Amino acid sequence: MDKKLRIGIIGAGRISKSHTPALVQRIPQVEVVKLADINLEAAHALADPLGIPVCRDYHELIDDPGIDAIFIFSSTDTHAQMCIEAAAAGKHIFCEKPIDRDAGKIKEVIAAVEKAGVKFQVGFNRRFDKHFLQVRRQVASGAVGEVQIVKISSRDPQSPPIGYVRGSGGMYTDMTIHDFDMVQYLSGAKVTEVSCYGANLIDPAIKEAGDVDTCVIMMKLDSGALAMIDNSRQAVYGYDQRVEVFGSKGCVIAQNETLDNTVLLNAEGVFHSKPLWYFLERYKDAFTEQDRQFVEACLQDKPTPVGVRDGLYPVLIADAVLESSNLGGVPVKVKSID
Amino acid sequence: MDKKLRIGIIGAGRISKSHTPALVQRIPQVEVVKLADINLEAAHALADPLGIPVCRDYHELIDDPGIDAIFIFSSTDTHAQMCIEAAAAGKHIFCEKPIDRDAGKIKEVIAAVEKAGVKFQVGFNRRFDKHFLQVRRQVASGAVGEVQIVKISSRDPQSPPIGYVRGSGGMYTDMTIHDFDMVQYLSGAKVTEVSCYGANLIDPAIKEAGDVDTCVIMMKLDSGALAMIDNSRQAVYGYDQRVEVFGSKGCVIAQNETLDNTVLLNAEGVFHSKPLWYFLERYKDAFTEQDRQFVEACLQDKPTPVGVRDGLYPVLIADAVLESSNLGGVPVKVKSID
Amino acid sequence: MDKKLRIGIIGAGRISKSHTPALVQRIPQVEVVKLADINLEAAHALADPLGIPVCRDYHELIDDPGIDAIFIFSSTDTHAQMCIEAAAAGKHIFCEKPIDRDAGKIKEVIAAVEKAGVKFQVGFNRRFDKHFLQVRRQVASGAVGEVQIVKISSRDPQSPPIGYVRGSGGMYTDMTIHDFDMVQYLSGAKVTEVSCYGANLIDPAIKEAGDVDTCVIMMKLDSGALAMIDNSRQAVYGYDQRVEVFGSKGCVIAQNETLDNTVLLNAEGVFHSKPLWYFLERYKDAFTEQDRQFVEACLQDKPTPVGVRDGLYPVLIADAVLESSNLGGVPVKVKSID
Amino acid sequence: MDKKLRIGIIGAGRISKSHTPALVQRIPQVEVVKLADINLEAAHALADPLGIPVCRDYHELIDDPGIDAIFIFSSTDTHAQMCIEAAAAGKHIFCEKPIDRDAGKIKEVIAAVEKAGVKFQVGFNRRFDKHFLQVRRQVASGAVGEVQIVKISSRDPQSPPIGYVRGSGGMYTDMTIHDFDMVQYLSGAKVTEVSCYGANLIDPAIKEAGDVDTCVIMMKLDSGALAMIDNSRQAVYGYDQRVEVFGSKGCVIAQNETLDNTVLLNAEGVFHSKPLWYFLERYKDAFTEQDRQFVEACLQDKPTPVGVRDGLYPVLIADAVLESSNLGGVPVKVKSID
Repeated sequence: MDKKLRIGIIGAGRISKSHTPALVQRIPQVEVVKLADINLEAAHALADPLGIPVCRDYHELIDDPGIDAIFIFSSTDTHAQMCIEAAAAGKHIFCEKPIDRDAGKIKEVIAAVEKAGVKFQVGFNRRFDKHFLQVRRQVASGAVGEVQIVKISSRDPQSPPIGYVRGSGGMYTDMTIHDFDMVQYLSGAKVTEVSCYGANLIDPAIKEAGDVDTCVIMMKLDSGALAMIDNSRQAVYGYDQRVEVFGSKGCVIAQNETLDNTVLLNAEGVFHSKPLWYFLERYKDAFTEQDRQFVEACLQDKPTPVGVRDGLYPVLIADAVLESSNLGGVPVKVKSID
Repeated sequence: MDKKLRIGIIGAGRISKSHTPALVQRIPQVEVVKLADINLEAAHALADPLGIPVCRDYHELIDDPGIDAIFIFSSTDTHAQMCIEAAAAGKHIFCEKPIDRDAGKIKEVIAAVEKAGVKFQVGFNRRFDKHFLQVRRQVASGAVGEVQIVKISSRDPQSPPIGYVRGSGGMYTDMTIHDFDMVQYLSGAKVTEVSCYGANLIDPAIKEAGDVDTCVIMMKLDSGALAMIDNSRQAVYGYDQRVEVFGSKGCVIAQNETLDNTVLLNAEGVFHSKPLWYFLERYKDAFTEQDRQFVEACLQDKPTPVGVRDGLYPVLIADAVLESSNLGGVPVKVKSID
Repeated sequence: MDKKLRIGIIGAGRISKSHTPALVQRIPQVEVVKLADINLEAAHALADPLGIPVCRDYHELIDDPGIDAIFIFSSTDTHAQMCIEAAAAGKHIFCEKPIDRDAGKIKEVIAAVEKAGVKFQVGFNRRFDKHFLQVRRQVASGAVGEVQIVKISSRDPQSPPIGYVRGSGGMYTDMTIHDFDMVQYLSGAKVTEVSCYGANLIDPAIKEAGDVDTCVIMMKLDSGALAMIDNSRQAVYGYDQRVEVFGSKGCVIAQNETLDNTVLLNAEGVFHSKPLWYFLERYKDAFTEQDRQFVEACLQDKPTPVGVRDGLYPVLIADAVLESSNLGGVPVKVKSID
Repeated sequence: MDKKLRIGIIGAGRISKSHTPALVQRIPQVEVVKLADINLEAAHALADPLGIPVCRDYHELIDDPGIDAIFIFSSTDTHAQMCIEAAAAGKHIFCEKPIDRDAGKIKEVIAAVEKAGVKFQVGFNRRFDKHFLQVRRQVASGAVGEVQIVKISSRDPQSPPIGYVRGSGGMYTDMTIHDFDMVQYLSGAKVTEVSCYGANLIDPAIKEAGDVDTCVIMMKLDSGALAMIDNSRQAVYGYDQRVEVFGSKGCVIAQNETLDNTVLLNAEGVFHSKPLWYFLERYKDAFTEQDRQFVEACLQDKPTPVGVRDGLYPVLIADAVLESSNLGGVPVKVKSID
């Protein structure tokens, strides 16, 4: 068998659960050396059934010369420090999004990663969804001509616990950030200006926590194209993830992925299957595929598909969107990455 | 046979062609007494095959005691004057949208119509489209709960002749005005504030004419809901007319109507039928149905389904959208109707 | 206005109601001179609101030199005699399907019509449905290559009254006969042999009346292609009318036409609109279009789109299918038309 | 980690390639002890990258006390002997379909398996497809009421090599056999009688090999319901796998699974994604799921989801279908399983 990538995993929380089993079971080129979490109980719960040793302190992973790459699935406020330390130790890094909520800290990570020359990938899983990939392929191939309008609907099936909301950095950083990345990824252009109306239409507790639960956003891209995003924390019918790219030669649309392709017709009506419930179901294969491509990039010394700078753009856009939302929709320019 | 409504028709242009044959052939309760157009040749071309007498001066219709109602299909700048004269003569009035581009003039029409107590209907044909009607029914029935987001995509298949653009009053007044009406009709709420990015992405001649050809718009409604519209003057695949209303209990979507429901599968791919080409095809039945309901309202002395004040709201919204567009997307409040 | 076709209508029953109003209101080239029905009350109920004079005896129509064409919508057992008399009087003839249940009598009609040289059209309305027309166009254009398999699902929304069943000539003659015509029309080939399983799965009263309510049929065509039909008297979700033609280069499918193109997504599921309820809704435009094409053929002296011999083939197929059904599925050859 | 099932795999051909990597990588409860193939080169090609030891003689697996279960993926004519030997050795058995082409030999396998009391599963992978599973769930839940008509379209994307055709036992045994199983699985009833028209419409070489390439089949079920199957060896648009169950309360349909859910609209038309190309793509997850359920049944001592008798029914139906096809469509009763 071929050479394997020996990895350490930091974090045993929700997002780790969506990666770690697949890293063990579905990517044969990976050998998971150890998993670290300050909550040892959580670490054991996740790692034991998979036969992965655990530890409390992530420095054990960073200091381990037998580890090639670090997967960072800990809480957002710890990402930047871990990235910098891992880079300094010469480890390749897969880091969940966002790298940090502060653009300045992300720039420090960029500097550290570029200085160390290690591989870095940030977890924008949607780029690996087969439906969105096909949209991107069609756009890149010229099938829709010059891009004129990008539209994204992104709606969660249910509001997160209010504790999660409080620590999330707000809907724009926590949820819309994926859409910011997708607008740029699908269009191949950069967002330069945004206008946003945020609203509280779902849960008063979210408002009390200082966040919004519904928003609509308009954007200008540097290519001249326009973009629109709408977000909701609660689509009772399931995870609603649709994108559309319209241009001079046509339009390409990615519809939702459903539980199955059956239709039931009866006296009450015609029932199609519902969208997949949430991101763990919808992006299950995408999570594995992004990890697989990172592993392949490390083993074959190729560029990663989502680089460290791709982690900064969406945060800069989120900053501008939050400012526009706070100003009641006034257009705000996105800060330059440099 | 039952009593008929005796009508006079003003105008023999494009929009008249979409109404007049149906008024003769598909609405048996109508008797078309005469058609007036300053271009007598155009009048004959349309009216002769239908057996309708013609005249040059529309005053012949307004002065004819044998005429119960006037259908106004002439150019927009003549609407208000004709409405006021017809109302004064006690004629019921069907007037193509917009009543006028100037809100002040529309208020004069409102005053005249309300003083005369005649029936008045403005030609927002989309309200009579079976797909949008079903969306409205679902929203009104509570099937989507509290409305949170309204989305409309409205794209023409091809840019109009540049001469038409110059006289159109601009895309927002000419084209988006239907969407302004639909946002309010579908949601049952009023638009209070708008932000708009306009762009020139299709035809430089449109820019030279001082107009835009592409736009995205965000809106706040008085119910707290948000709305989004995107428009393009050129969707090469056909007339793209989709609406979506999202709320606390679900989402209802009207997809495009297609030429037929066939699917062709071959080695190249899976081909579904295209959307109907343009408004004459898509809204053919809606045009007839709105005329039929106006006729029925006149004959049975019922309220018309789209009243004279419904002609003012979209113009007030268009004014705000144009201002926001000119200001580069700054939010602008919609003027009160009073 | 152009010359009109002066017509007489025989019959005021269900099928007449699906033709007569459209003949008056939607086909301006028609002048309905008189309607005859032995049930004068039924005649008045249908004709009076449309302003059509009535009479009891259909001979008044046949003897009237001011009538150019006869539309026969009376009960099936009267069709042949009326056709022969109308042909002898030099009238063009539109006759509802089937011309007769007896192939011999149809041959007499063929002889009479061909001798008189009058226009004749039999009412296979499905050929004028826009979805099936597009299937036929694709097949004729070679888009599916050599036809290999034709599939038709044809299911009524509800069983007819048992009195209707008793007088219907049986499901194969009454209902499947349309599918027999469609198999030949869509494929451009002739049916040579059939096998049929009939069953009673819906209503015991239908069995007591000597008829079946469910069937599956296999066919061989003279081109070498195969065909399949399934019928049910009761599809509780509405009128199910789907066809599929599969060939060496692909497959073309006509899906059901629905009430509208809306989708409702909620916590219970994803609801698409139901199929149109029954033939009056599904084939409304097709009924008008077939009448219009007959009128045009008469006025312009062109061949009718469905000739008198097209009325015989499906009856010959129905005879073979009934025999196979009675024999428990044994293959039966279809008699030659000559 | 939990106890693992130690398995031996016989065969390194096409069907083994669709199972073996998933057995190693996607089912963690499995330990693949050894793979046997008389073609050692093929065995190495498949097994080496997966780290599986190989041998030439499958008796090494059957004689190995460290092996709990045997997966049989060799050519059909070897299945029965291997099953009998493996059962005698007390091994659980997963056997690709068909167990044998001869019903008598299958009965010998049934006897051997039932005597030994080992677990046995036959590889009807389609029962594990998520779309068909949902159809079965709906039928079993009563959502369509009493089943009246079952319809299956099953079409391969391209004809197999003529060498494969010659050794395949014929289309009914090789290809339609899946549909025979599905008719019974979906309806919950047994097939009692069949009529079949076979045809050669694709490749003359198939005819020369004594086989057909196209067929339509009608069936009677012991519940009174009817069924229809159509098969083609060549659907140029991809693997066409649709089923439909119609009953007294409604109809449930499984549509094809497509590459993705995107739609491209341009001036040429509206392009949806194509069906998955062939069984390896369409049933990839189903293959893994059937293996997983067999493994689980062995480890937890539960009944397997597809038992040894389920391997006999479809072969009895195939015998009757072949006889009917040879007789030109004459109905043939299916032999009793006892």
